[in-house]
Amino acid sequence: MRIDLNSDLGEGFGPWSMGDDAEMLSIVSSANIACGGHAGDPETMFRTLSLAKENGVTVGAHPGYNDREGFGRRVIPMSPAEIGRMCAAQIGALMGIAAQVGVPVTYVKPHGALGNLAARDAEVAAAIVAAVQTIDPELAILAISGTQSEQAARAANAPVFSEIFADRGYLSSGQLVPRDQDGAMIHDAGQATARLLSFLETGLMPVIDGPPIKLAAQSICVHGDSPGAVAMAREVRNRLTAQGVQITGFTKA
Amino acid sequence: MRIDLNSDLGEGFGPWSMGDDAEMLSIVSSANIACGGHAGDPETMFRTLSLAKENGVTVGAHPGYNDREGFGRRVIPMSPAEIGRMCAAQIGALMGIAAQVGVPVTYVKPHGALGNLAARDAEVAAAIVAAVQTIDPELAILAISGTQSEQAARAANAPVFSEIFADRGYLSSGQLVPRDQDGAMIHDAGQATARLLSFLETGLMPVIDGPPIKLAAQSICVHGDSPGAVAMAREVRNRLTAQGVQITGFTKA
Amino acid sequence: MRIDLNSDLGEGFGPWSMGDDAEMLSIVSSANIACGGHAGDPETMFRTLSLAKENGVTVGAHPGYNDREGFGRRVIPMSPAEIGRMCAAQIGALMGIAAQVGVPVTYVKPHGALGNLAARDAEVAAAIVAAVQTIDPELAILAISGTQSEQAARAANAPVFSEIFADRGYLSSGQLVPRDQDGAMIHDAGQATARLLSFLETGLMPVIDGPPIKLAAQSICVHGDSPGAVAMAREVRNRLTAQGVQITGFTKA
Amino acid sequence: MRIDLNSDLGEGFGPWSMGDDAEMLSIVSSANIACGGHAGDPETMFRTLSLAKENGVTVGAHPGYNDREGFGRRVIPMSPAEIGRMCAAQIGALMGIAAQVGVPVTYVKPHGALGNLAARDAEVAAAIVAAVQTIDPELAILAISGTQSEQAARAANAPVFSEIFADRGYLSSGQLVPRDQDGAMIHDAGQATARLLSFLETGLMPVIDGPPIKLAAQSICVHGDSPGAVAMAREVRNRLTAQGVQITGFTKA
Repeated sequence: MRIDLNSDLGEGFGPWSMGDDAEMLSIVSSANIACGGHAGDPETMFRTLSLAKENGVTVGAHPGYNDREGFGRRVIPMSPAEIGRMCAAQIGALMGIAAQVGVPVTYVKPHGALGNLAARDAEVAAAIVAAVQTIDPELAILAISGTQSEQAARAANAPVFSEIFADRGYLSSGQLVPRDQDGAMIHDAGQATARLLSFLETGLMPVIDGPPIKLAAQSICVHGDSPGAVAMAREVRNRLTAQGVQITGFTKA
Repeated sequence: MRIDLNSDLGEGFGPWSMGDDAEMLSIVSSANIACGGHAGDPETMFRTLSLAKENGVTVGAHPGYNDREGFGRRVIPMSPAEIGRMCAAQIGALMGIAAQVGVPVTYVKPHGALGNLAARDAEVAAAIVAAVQTIDPELAILAISGTQSEQAARAANAPVFSEIFADRGYLSSGQLVPRDQDGAMIHDAGQATARLLSFLETGLMPVIDGPPIKLAAQSICVHGDSPGAVAMAREVRNRLTAQGVQITGFTKA
Repeated sequence: MRIDLNSDLGEGFGPWSMGDDAEMLSIVSSANIACGGHAGDPETMFRTLSLAKENGVTVGAHPGYNDREGFGRRVIPMSPAEIGRMCAAQIGALMGIAAQVGVPVTYVKPHGALGNLAARDAEVAAAIVAAVQTIDPELAILAISGTQSEQAARAANAPVFSEIFADRGYLSSGQLVPRDQDGAMIHDAGQATARLLSFLETGLMPVIDGPPIKLAAQSICVHGDSPGAVAMAREVRNRLTAQGVQITGFTKA
Repeated sequence: MRIDLNSDLGEGFGPWSMGDDAEMLSIVSSANIACGGHAGDPETMFRTLSLAKENGVTVGAHPGYNDREGFGRRVIPMSPAEIGRMCAAQIGALMGIAAQVGVPVTYVKPHGALGNLAARDAEVAAAIVAAVQTIDPELAILAISGTQSEQAARAANAPVFSEIFADRGYLSSGQLVPRDQDGAMIHDAGQATARLLSFLETGLMPVIDGPPIKLAAQSICVHGDSPGAVAMAREVRNRLTAQGVQITGFTKA
């Protein structure tokens, strides 16, 4: 059994940092790196990419709304075409820095409000996939399992990989339990890992409102924006590897 | 005889425009396009690149300090390595948009205070050349004739092209007459063109403080930031072509 | 008969300008000046405030979303309280510069998407009015006649003035004709002025879908973002004054 | 004996924080609060001002270069007049938010590279003092003891207070030991406090290159940008109060 662990990283800006990137880069196999939109700047990108390379971590672009004050968590009204171009500029910026580091950018995962919009809006999803594919047809899309992003990538014959969340509860519909409902978050690493191991063996994900559902996933998303989140990610990795699961990037660098 | 005409374009931002890009793109053969640093954003880049493509104009990246309020005309204290990375991110951003348009980016010319610093500071010049070459060894440098930028590019075996200015006076040293001195600006299109034609035939540039000097140049820089500047550029082009000079991009798309 | 003419001004940023502020400041009696949110910066504010003072033009703050790329024309998701604080910071910034010029800021008119939202959303309107009143209870609100902004100001016992548009058609409901419908824009200065004169005499505004309606207004909004708009504003002013209408600011400096 | 303790606070931005503001606001008697230039935004200002009010901490404006990426630590080339206006806009912004909180802004201390420039450049110092005094003649200047800032404020008859640093070594000239030299930083809280107590009793400050020098100071600057710095600040406060020194703001709210 093998699986990828991915996390959003390089989300500092100027003098400010977000989470513990160095620690997380010793845990994950893929790093979604902010590109100067919702977070990131040339120096932050360079440091994060260099650390990712040192740790043998696969690198993806993590474009988001150009809204640092809102950290990319607010939907900024834009047409799908404008969104595609905004992503293209950000992916290009990360690639420019990645060239300096000597590490390839192999996939794209939209951030925050942009990722959520692409998950539910087919036009936005298609615009992002098209922008990515126009830059390089080998660039993969990392999408939440079962979303419009995933479908748009498949429809475009783009390489696509699906993710599940280590610390979020699921509904029968395949959607995440909304954050304001019971069961939205899984705070216990043991419980999270047991669920992930069961999923890896059976392809079935437990849900809070019925029998387990079938999901496909090549990657598990872990968070690193608080000391508790980092500890959880470390624990999930350790328990998975103790059970013989291999943690490897879903794309080849 | 043939020569390139280049100009700084795509220097609007959001709702604001700078000069008449559409008109200038019918005059020049190469466009130095702002990359989101001192000016430009994804939409502005996209529009300018699309117009350049329609007009068969060669495209270069025009990186500058991340200082929109100062339009890249103020030196922001940064190390040469930081400058290289800032340029890499901006060039990458333009390339991301250029991929959407389907037009190649073939050269780089630093903007304003960054260009002036690179012209006189060997370390900064070398850092920019190295950053550019790491992205793509075929990316050319467009440098003011006789500067550290030109030398750094030659030292790195990078493709390099030199430019002279249509509307600026020269000193025996090869430097431009400072803007606050008599003879700094040439306001008459006839005089400017006569000087350029003489240069194209002889390789000698008139100066204000001695006999003409030898300069090498593959491109003439014209400005488009005022109606008068656009008229001057148009006039220079018309007079040169009337004399049988061919206006073509110095790099091949 | 007397009326105020107001216009959005100081909407440049750094090297970029928007419209012809100097010309407009010789036409209007009140200037809504951008505060560094959707447009404006300390130097632009200073120049515009200085010109307004020279021309004896009343000064208002024109806060907008912190979204220069979208020029404040996109709704950025924010709570009413956050909107109030954003406005407070911008009004304060303009007041800081106005102190340097020695001119008072006497009213507030929200810009673009923020103004439109405040016109229809009672909570947002109340939050803006509260923020303004907390800074200075004598600061007036300039609101589109008949909107939530106007009602919120009245409910708070804040000084409030209403405006109508010189170049926009009206519906029986008191709303503006949407921009994508026939009759939305009035392009002829003669027609616009005739309508305004009739309104000033009778208090009745012609509408495109029925008999004239009763409106209250102390100010007429004119635009200055294109040469045509400036000419229209000049013409409206000239015709009104030729008919004996006095053009004066609605607040006293 | 009484003295003020001041610290730079509210230096987060959007989702990012800098240091432990809540902890520091239980230690200091005066808070230099970032105004949206090098750091800060309306929400961060609001939170910091609210916490300052709850803790009875005196509030000052902490303007800096509009350079978040460089955290205001880089000199951006600007004329003294431009610097004055930049400060005026930032101070006004903080005042706009302070009005929402219901807490007065009573002094100004420039940040980072701007503060250092004002300390050594008489024209810049005078421009900042003039901008501040034009906003409100009762606004005090908090200046490093012995600098051009202090002199400019005295020359303008502006209220002025001087500060010394708890954790920095001094030279006979009254200047700080440069950060790259031995003795620049005092890392031991006991040593720092002993020095401060001695200074409070005698008005004499130990220096690393001669006998103690006479300094005047109404405030001690402490840092809060690392856990170690916060612990040091806490220790300094505790030891001073244990010795009967009263910690109170140098201006009255």
